[in-house]
Amino acid sequence: MQQHFVSRRNFLKASAVGGALTTFSPRLFAQEARPDSLAGLTVHTRVPANAESPLPELVKSWITPNELFYVRSHAAVPQIDLKSYRLIVEGLVETPLSLSLEELQQNFQATELTATMTCAGNRRYEHSRIQPVGGVPWQEGAIGNAKWSGIILGHVLRKAGVKENAKHVWFDGLDAVEKNGSIIPFGASIPIAKVFDKSGNMPGALLCDKMNGQPLPPDHGWPLRTVVPGYIGARSVKWLGKITVSDRPTPNHFVATAYKLVQQGTDLEWAEQAPLYRYPLNSVICTPSPNASIKTGLTTIAGFALPPGNASARIQKVEVSSDNGKSWTTAKLSSPASDYCWMLWTAEINVTGKTDEVLVKATDDQGKSQPRKGEWNQKGYMYDGWHGVPLRVES
Amino acid sequence: MQQHFVSRRNFLKASAVGGALTTFSPRLFAQEARPDSLAGLTVHTRVPANAESPLPELVKSWITPNELFYVRSHAAVPQIDLKSYRLIVEGLVETPLSLSLEELQQNFQATELTATMTCAGNRRYEHSRIQPVGGVPWQEGAIGNAKWSGIILGHVLRKAGVKENAKHVWFDGLDAVEKNGSIIPFGASIPIAKVFDKSGNMPGALLCDKMNGQPLPPDHGWPLRTVVPGYIGARSVKWLGKITVSDRPTPNHFVATAYKLVQQGTDLEWAEQAPLYRYPLNSVICTPSPNASIKTGLTTIAGFALPPGNASARIQKVEVSSDNGKSWTTAKLSSPASDYCWMLWTAEINVTGKTDEVLVKATDDQGKSQPRKGEWNQKGYMYDGWHGVPLRVES
Repeated sequence: MQQHFVSRRNFLKASAVGGALTTFSPRLFAQEARPDSLAGLTVHTRVPANAESPLPELVKSWITPNELFYVRSHAAVPQIDLKSYRLIVEGLVETPLSLSLEELQQNFQATELTATMTCAGNRRYEHSRIQPVGGVPWQEGAIGNAKWSGIILGHVLRKAGVKENAKHVWFDGLDAVEKNGSIIPFGASIPIAKVFDKSGNMPGALLCDKMNGQPLPPDHGWPLRTVVPGYIGARSVKWLGKITVSDRPTPNHFVATAYKLVQQGTDLEWAEQAPLYRYPLNSVICTPSPNASIKTGLTTIAGFALPPGNASARIQKVEVSSDNGKSWTTAKLSSPASDYCWMLWTAEINVTGKTDEVLVKATDDQGKSQPRKGEWNQKGYMYDGWHGVPLRVES
Repeated sequence: MQQHFVSRRNFLKASAVGGALTTFSPRLFAQEARPDSLAGLTVHTRVPANAESPLPELVKSWITPNELFYVRSHAAVPQIDLKSYRLIVEGLVETPLSLSLEELQQNFQATELTATMTCAGNRRYEHSRIQPVGGVPWQEGAIGNAKWSGIILGHVLRKAGVKENAKHVWFDGLDAVEKNGSIIPFGASIPIAKVFDKSGNMPGALLCDKMNGQPLPPDHGWPLRTVVPGYIGARSVKWLGKITVSDRPTPNHFVATAYKLVQQGTDLEWAEQAPLYRYPLNSVICTPSPNASIKTGLTTIAGFALPPGNASARIQKVEVSSDNGKSWTTAKLSSPASDYCWMLWTAEINVTGKTDEVLVKATDDQGKSQPRKGEWNQKGYMYDGWHGVPLRVES
């Protein structure tokens, strides 16, 4: 397994050398993607690519390597020719823009931020135990933490000149999603107040061209994607083609009638509910794996905890229980405390003949804890109940 | 007190006789309103009129008499001349309409429905005990149940011809609200799916000209208001002047930046949150009054319970506790079970020397119960924690 990862890292390194990293030649990635870009991930579907990270690998590093980073797509990777590629900026702006990737890179200062990205449907498999829901049956690995580099979206919008009545910013991908008999781009929008949010230590949204120092892998949106720290992954649109400044949220399906919390999914409910933006407080046990055979005595468990998607929110504590929540042991937090980033943790539990499951829950710095059980919703989003892993104790 | 109500009822009766009830002359109401239209209510502010019902009176009747019905206004009662009054219907319609009240009444069939209306800020006084919030400090009486008569909004919109891209319906009042240095109408909007909702036993929205068989009192929106069963009172716009069919919610302040659940009230939060529509499951003890002197032994307590604002939702049970929630007694439900209507209830509790408070909680027919404590939000909306009344036991 480990060797396999190394070999893919070498492949990426070789590719990067082929086109100098600073002015990379990303067509290589679009046309010569890794032979199996999902190798090492748990694959749910190949086209569109939906695959999640193996939990024991995920928790080995605060920064998730690109090859281990979950992939969530709604359509096949689009074939993009960088020569004709343009990012369009239009709508409620004084000066509409049409920028090649090079123009974007040359005219705006590059920046880097580290942020955790997670799918709103992460943990849907557990969610379905309350009552079954459709959609990709993600376990707990549709999450990762990366260094994202690129241009601050607010700088580009200031260049275009935002009109006074602007309230939301729409993103359209260059992918082709089949939806209700039509072909539409995957789309999202975010409040413009998020773009210019000053409440945290990082910009509200990034036009990202590098992931962990490498050109964006095709599965992650080459040549350009948005990265919106603190928001569900669906707002970080891959293969970004167009930005539209508007006075309202986009009517795109994935904002108007998906990624909302509904019970029955009637037209009325879709219209009443707001689009999901910030992800909730969460925590997951990554090792041991479910039903692992464990000896009695002290055992180390490890996992991640995610503060809620608010600027400056922090994990206050992570607790584990081996007696179904009657008593709790405080875990050791082992990561930097950084805006919009997960926290890795380890804890020692005393395994006895009676131990059959270990549970985790996190508390944030506002004193809010995860609920024992998450609230069911028809699309299986935002599951945030205590995570449990069943164990088999060796007798 | 009782005599006072009778005299006001007689006044209203006399007024109705002055202009025949079927083609009433409502200018009388606008120009000769009750000398003190808020008499008998607990008044928070007189202009705009904000007053709530005394709980012991409120629970005497399933239908709340007009004089006892809470009043929530954002501006003074507008002076409207019925001769020039027109209801405008515009926006995404084939044929914009301009209708006098008489044209509305003569061209569309009248209907009647009974529904509970409640302010989103009801119980804000208790809400403020978690952490203080601004706004009218409503206790528990900003609620009432009435027979509303008028025209089904869907019929009027069908007459105008709704265009395919219509998604929301805006309502503008004829009142003049001062907001951030400007004068704006009080406004609301509802999803068009609510207007045409078939999931319950009543129309989704009514253009209402009569309240409990009487022309709308000025404080309640004469000559015409919307009534939107199941939704917070703020969506039932009084003194209705204009209906606009649109592809989005209204940008009016009371939808875009009020009546939402926010923690800090930043621009970002307002943009992220959906407008409040349906009210939550709730229950309140109306008698005895707080700190009433009670003898030991069996005592009857009474109150109301409100099912959540979904079509066909029902109260399954109401429970009371005199030992801080350790044990519960099931209350007797004493009202018709009707869509979007409250339920009155009574319960017998055994008062002992140790009894210092009685609590109530309701459960709906989905098995969902009220939380012990409601979730705090900056504007103090939707408080739905267990209601408690402190008692003084006679020794």
